[in-house]
Amino acid sequence: MTAPAKKTARPDGRAPDALRPIRFTPDLAPAASGSVLVEFGRTRVICGASIEDGVPRWMRAQNVSGGWLTAEYSLLPYATKPRSSRESSTGKVSGRTQEIQRLIGRSLRAVTDLDKLGERTIWLDCDVLEADGGTRTAAVTGAWVALRRAVNKLLKDGALKEDPLREAVAAVSVGIVEGRPLLDLCYTEDLAAAVDMNVVMTASGRFVEVQGTAEETPYSREELDGLLDLAAKGIRQLLKAQRLVIRG
Amino acid sequence: MTAPAKKTARPDGRAPDALRPIRFTPDLAPAASGSVLVEFGRTRVICGASIEDGVPRWMRAQNVSGGWLTAEYSLLPYATKPRSSRESSTGKVSGRTQEIQRLIGRSLRAVTDLDKLGERTIWLDCDVLEADGGTRTAAVTGAWVALRRAVNKLLKDGALKEDPLREAVAAVSVGIVEGRPLLDLCYTEDLAAAVDMNVVMTASGRFVEVQGTAEETPYSREELDGLLDLAAKGIRQLLKAQRLVIRG
Amino acid sequence: MTAPAKKTARPDGRAPDALRPIRFTPDLAPAASGSVLVEFGRTRVICGASIEDGVPRWMRAQNVSGGWLTAEYSLLPYATKPRSSRESSTGKVSGRTQEIQRLIGRSLRAVTDLDKLGERTIWLDCDVLEADGGTRTAAVTGAWVALRRAVNKLLKDGALKEDPLREAVAAVSVGIVEGRPLLDLCYTEDLAAAVDMNVVMTASGRFVEVQGTAEETPYSREELDGLLDLAAKGIRQLLKAQRLVIRG
Amino acid sequence: MTAPAKKTARPDGRAPDALRPIRFTPDLAPAASGSVLVEFGRTRVICGASIEDGVPRWMRAQNVSGGWLTAEYSLLPYATKPRSSRESSTGKVSGRTQEIQRLIGRSLRAVTDLDKLGERTIWLDCDVLEADGGTRTAAVTGAWVALRRAVNKLLKDGALKEDPLREAVAAVSVGIVEGRPLLDLCYTEDLAAAVDMNVVMTASGRFVEVQGTAEETPYSREELDGLLDLAAKGIRQLLKAQRLVIRG
Amino acid sequence: MTAPAKKTARPDGRAPDALRPIRFTPDLAPAASGSVLVEFGRTRVICGASIEDGVPRWMRAQNVSGGWLTAEYSLLPYATKPRSSRESSTGKVSGRTQEIQRLIGRSLRAVTDLDKLGERTIWLDCDVLEADGGTRTAAVTGAWVALRRAVNKLLKDGALKEDPLREAVAAVSVGIVEGRPLLDLCYTEDLAAAVDMNVVMTASGRFVEVQGTAEETPYSREELDGLLDLAAKGIRQLLKAQRLVIRG
Amino acid sequence: MTAPAKKTARPDGRAPDALRPIRFTPDLAPAASGSVLVEFGRTRVICGASIEDGVPRWMRAQNVSGGWLTAEYSLLPYATKPRSSRESSTGKVSGRTQEIQRLIGRSLRAVTDLDKLGERTIWLDCDVLEADGGTRTAAVTGAWVALRRAVNKLLKDGALKEDPLREAVAAVSVGIVEGRPLLDLCYTEDLAAAVDMNVVMTASGRFVEVQGTAEETPYSREELDGLLDLAAKGIRQLLKAQRLVIRG
Repeated sequence: MTAPAKKTARPDGRAPDALRPIRFTPDLAPAASGSVLVEFGRTRVICGASIEDGVPRWMRAQNVSGGWLTAEYSLLPYATKPRSSRESSTGKVSGRTQEIQRLIGRSLRAVTDLDKLGERTIWLDCDVLEADGGTRTAAVTGAWVALRRAVNKLLKDGALKEDPLREAVAAVSVGIVEGRPLLDLCYTEDLAAAVDMNVVMTASGRFVEVQGTAEETPYSREELDGLLDLAAKGIRQLLKAQRLVIRG
Repeated sequence: MTAPAKKTARPDGRAPDALRPIRFTPDLAPAASGSVLVEFGRTRVICGASIEDGVPRWMRAQNVSGGWLTAEYSLLPYATKPRSSRESSTGKVSGRTQEIQRLIGRSLRAVTDLDKLGERTIWLDCDVLEADGGTRTAAVTGAWVALRRAVNKLLKDGALKEDPLREAVAAVSVGIVEGRPLLDLCYTEDLAAAVDMNVVMTASGRFVEVQGTAEETPYSREELDGLLDLAAKGIRQLLKAQRLVIRG
Repeated sequence: MTAPAKKTARPDGRAPDALRPIRFTPDLAPAASGSVLVEFGRTRVICGASIEDGVPRWMRAQNVSGGWLTAEYSLLPYATKPRSSRESSTGKVSGRTQEIQRLIGRSLRAVTDLDKLGERTIWLDCDVLEADGGTRTAAVTGAWVALRRAVNKLLKDGALKEDPLREAVAAVSVGIVEGRPLLDLCYTEDLAAAVDMNVVMTASGRFVEVQGTAEETPYSREELDGLLDLAAKGIRQLLKAQRLVIRG
Repeated sequence: MTAPAKKTARPDGRAPDALRPIRFTPDLAPAASGSVLVEFGRTRVICGASIEDGVPRWMRAQNVSGGWLTAEYSLLPYATKPRSSRESSTGKVSGRTQEIQRLIGRSLRAVTDLDKLGERTIWLDCDVLEADGGTRTAAVTGAWVALRRAVNKLLKDGALKEDPLREAVAAVSVGIVEGRPLLDLCYTEDLAAAVDMNVVMTASGRFVEVQGTAEETPYSREELDGLLDLAAKGIRQLLKAQRLVIRG
Repeated sequence: MTAPAKKTARPDGRAPDALRPIRFTPDLAPAASGSVLVEFGRTRVICGASIEDGVPRWMRAQNVSGGWLTAEYSLLPYATKPRSSRESSTGKVSGRTQEIQRLIGRSLRAVTDLDKLGERTIWLDCDVLEADGGTRTAAVTGAWVALRRAVNKLLKDGALKEDPLREAVAAVSVGIVEGRPLLDLCYTEDLAAAVDMNVVMTASGRFVEVQGTAEETPYSREELDGLLDLAAKGIRQLLKAQRLVIRG
Repeated sequence: MTAPAKKTARPDGRAPDALRPIRFTPDLAPAASGSVLVEFGRTRVICGASIEDGVPRWMRAQNVSGGWLTAEYSLLPYATKPRSSRESSTGKVSGRTQEIQRLIGRSLRAVTDLDKLGERTIWLDCDVLEADGGTRTAAVTGAWVALRRAVNKLLKDGALKEDPLREAVAAVSVGIVEGRPLLDLCYTEDLAAAVDMNVVMTASGRFVEVQGTAEETPYSREELDGLLDLAAKGIRQLLKAQRLVIRG
């Protein structure tokens, strides 16, 4: 009887269902209402939350009450090798960037009661210091920490009477690489993935976003189910890490 | 004993698991290699496929062999009431537009063997004549028809020896409205949906894209499963309708 | 005695003073206040009229009373072979496009009493489905039909008390090709024309616009006179065709 | 018996068929290949011709032989009262500007044999120092002088063997104001004109462009004929003035 | 004993501490409130001052009282050989242009009491007709003349009760070329300069701006001192020339 | 006899000639060839150096040999309170940003032998995490550290044979506030300064840039001299701090 062919190990030797080392460093940008540097292995993202009085003009025009929350995302030029151009220089925000900032905004709005926010706008800025795959899921996960810390300040100052945040939210990528489901893909795995899925889930275990894309080979319902299980496992660990840094 | 409270009927009286009337009108734009007007009820999209020799510069620069397929999407100004501005006038392609055209492009590439295409670029243009919800899923579904017809022409002319299209693809939206899962949402249902999901599936029943978004209330795994079943049912009907018009 | 050398026949065998087959298909875009697909042979243009409350900011700023009417024109990418780029992608509205939309707007404003319109803005959108020469003249001719139908709706609804439209307007191109004046040039004739003229005329036989351009050889006063006679003849036929579709 | 009601005099007391004082000041911009300041009364335009080796990329791409000639037009901010914004600041070249620069370019190309020019590009820049109506016709008229002087230099230097310029060209505006045809409208007359026409004519008396626009009331064939006669008279005088400054 | 090696003469034979011939021609653009053509040798700049009622929106928003003064600068395309592109065509105002217009604005604001101006905005437009080095210093020097003349008009008309201009201002470039300090560099000297300095000074001999840049070799404190002396000498002569034309 | 009136203390109690606490944290962005977080008190700037093969197209076109070095600068949105907009969103790089990135680039090029660099481009990116005055001088000072570290890597790898960096460079701001010269202004001092000067100096004590601007009151030669002495003192301390972190 022969041993089964061994699958290729992951670049950093992780188990298929293991996250990369997760780290949060708060207050990197003290002028922000809340800020954190989040690391998923070598992927590093600065998340800053700025809370301002007033709401965008379109809300006033449409008589929408309550507050607003929006996100912006950028790749700092030295986050990649070779260096990537600044979108301010090219004068165009790429489709990829817009898709990511819309995802971050939607994810955080889904756990925020905008009515309780009052006439305020929250900006969540996510700037990538180093990009090694999963920048959008790291950004969602870090943005929650920045947002929670910023809102805590407002609650403490008495500017907010009631907490507008309903529950925590975190995100992770999963994918199928060489036929095997993997958790939290790094850049080289992402490139090789046949299926790539981003999952955003709340502390109560419900989904905010599921985005699964077949990069080349369409995937079956069973594969989809396996990926969702894997993502849920990773997100529970991320939610735990967030709690530690927010309390701290 | 009283009867159970009846759910609100759908605006057009459809059953929860019924598609809107589907119609395809081919060759609306005879200068295109293939074109079709697709209607999902009142949602009407012109889909045009243009096949050109040559590939984009970035492919050459990166020495990628084979062909390329890309999509563009626009809302014609009179597709909505009130009229919407042209993105050529504002000079900015919105995030929503970019997200949709990236979805259409990925969906069609997932069933196309770009190597067999040779050094050619396929443009899939989707212009919305009337927008009543589900324009992106109608666009994917119609784009397949335009693509299939355009490629058939090349095969007939002998320009292509082998068929680069692996299988058909179609898309539909599903959502949870007033707690009830619905198939193929029209605009007013879309506005009222707590969860909104777009599903792109192939003729062999595999997924190309699953994008499920909680507009306000995050959703459970069971709800996700129910929506996927509903979408699969609708897509099988769309695939049948596509076959009829392509053969015809 | 020998017969005189015969001139080259027109590509579609038409007499020099014959229009291409003219067709109007109303209501292609039901969300518009009025819409029509106009065909001058293979040239096909969707014309949509949208009527909105309010006037542009500059009118308010300058205290101009009454309403406003403006036009936008675009070539759908699959209208030409090879495909043409979308102006929303390049981010620039070309000089040619602006010149055409200014012409359409001026032509329709010349037969509209903007005071009787009240504080409303009419948008006339002309999107070319297939371009085979004469797209701007087809657009003016179709825009009149869309406008007339849209205004009729407002009159019927009682939103307008008095008809703001003074008389019908239509347009046609004429040109000198191989020394011979021709009516309603198709694309290959347009390319070969030494002189190219667009004429916009009202039902009462008066001119709104005459734009005659020597592409290479300047033209004499006699040639100008001949072209104007030819254009007037064609426009009278177009006005008749418009009346049929509006009544219908 | 009573005398006929007298028409309002022109703002500067001119006869209806009189040009404003015409003046040409050569060499205002000595770095240009040829330059002139042209004045039609208070309308003052700097015209500069720059001749460069090479042709635009699109000509090479399409294998078009010979040279190219193109024009750019701008209103210097202090040319109007109140000051007008620079198009470089707004980042958009307006439709009006593009229409004018296309007119200037076409008018000068119509009298230039681009094949004899060799692989060269001529830029005609027209910058308005003061705008009092008729800037586009002054620009065409001045651009000819700048072009003629620039080409003369190339002929003298031996860089060109054969003269690529076939004949002179000039332009003037005419219009109907208070029912009366007028030559060379100043700004206040232009504002009041019911019909506005720009005519570009060559030394041999042939038309390059005729653009007649009804600003509010469409015009008859007889009115068109009268305006063309008036324009021809004015242009003959402008051609004479051009000859004097070129010889000088 | 041998004579010292003689330094290369300046292109136009000037002494190291001599200005180029300075000339001011007022009223080139009569629609401006004040205008002047300034020449520093072959460098020629049109300076126009436009005074308008009202202040920019940001001043109102920030409740800043008094008036505003701002500058715009452009290189007319034919000012250089080869021709330079218009920034309105490229759609981008270059860094160099913005740096220069900020310098001109700051320099003139430093001698203007914006409070005494009332709620007015002064635009100083500087358009270069020919560029032979020192366009920014010629622009500052000419802009003062245009500004002084424009304000004089307002004082005369009684629109201004008190003179908002405190004292005259002028500017000159100095530099180190082949180890030797030179005054008022022309273009070829500018290209060869190891150090390039622009100095803006008032009639009372105080500095508004000192900008000294080492193009390749950093410079010592002694060299800096020598350049400042040279600049002061030149500026005193420019101030004298300004006085003559303003009085005249 | 009375004691002299005491001057207002600096916001952080510093002596007039004292720098803020200076700190360098290397390797914040490991994907860059060299990176450092530089802090001048609360002003914090991430400086990243990326070295790439190849030079910009304009250098090739002009046949300039050697390498190139350029800088980009941005304010991260959360660096200020209230949050500032991203220039990628507004689509415009402001005049201030361009002026700063030109200053950084020139300063670093002045100490770099571009010929020894070979056909390489160095990008120096400076992104401000918190802005409390002096961001441009902190950026120049940090950019030197990032550059030195990046070049050291190339020397160590043998990619470079000879060191292209001639000597260190650093920068500091000085100004006159309430009549008193101050070193290294923080934001509130900067706002209050009558004169504002940025000085860039090399390790050998020579100037690369001196930019002194009178914000409202022009300054005398004596004041200029005093500011230069103060700046030189501060820069010598910065150069010492740079040496420590580079060696480390």
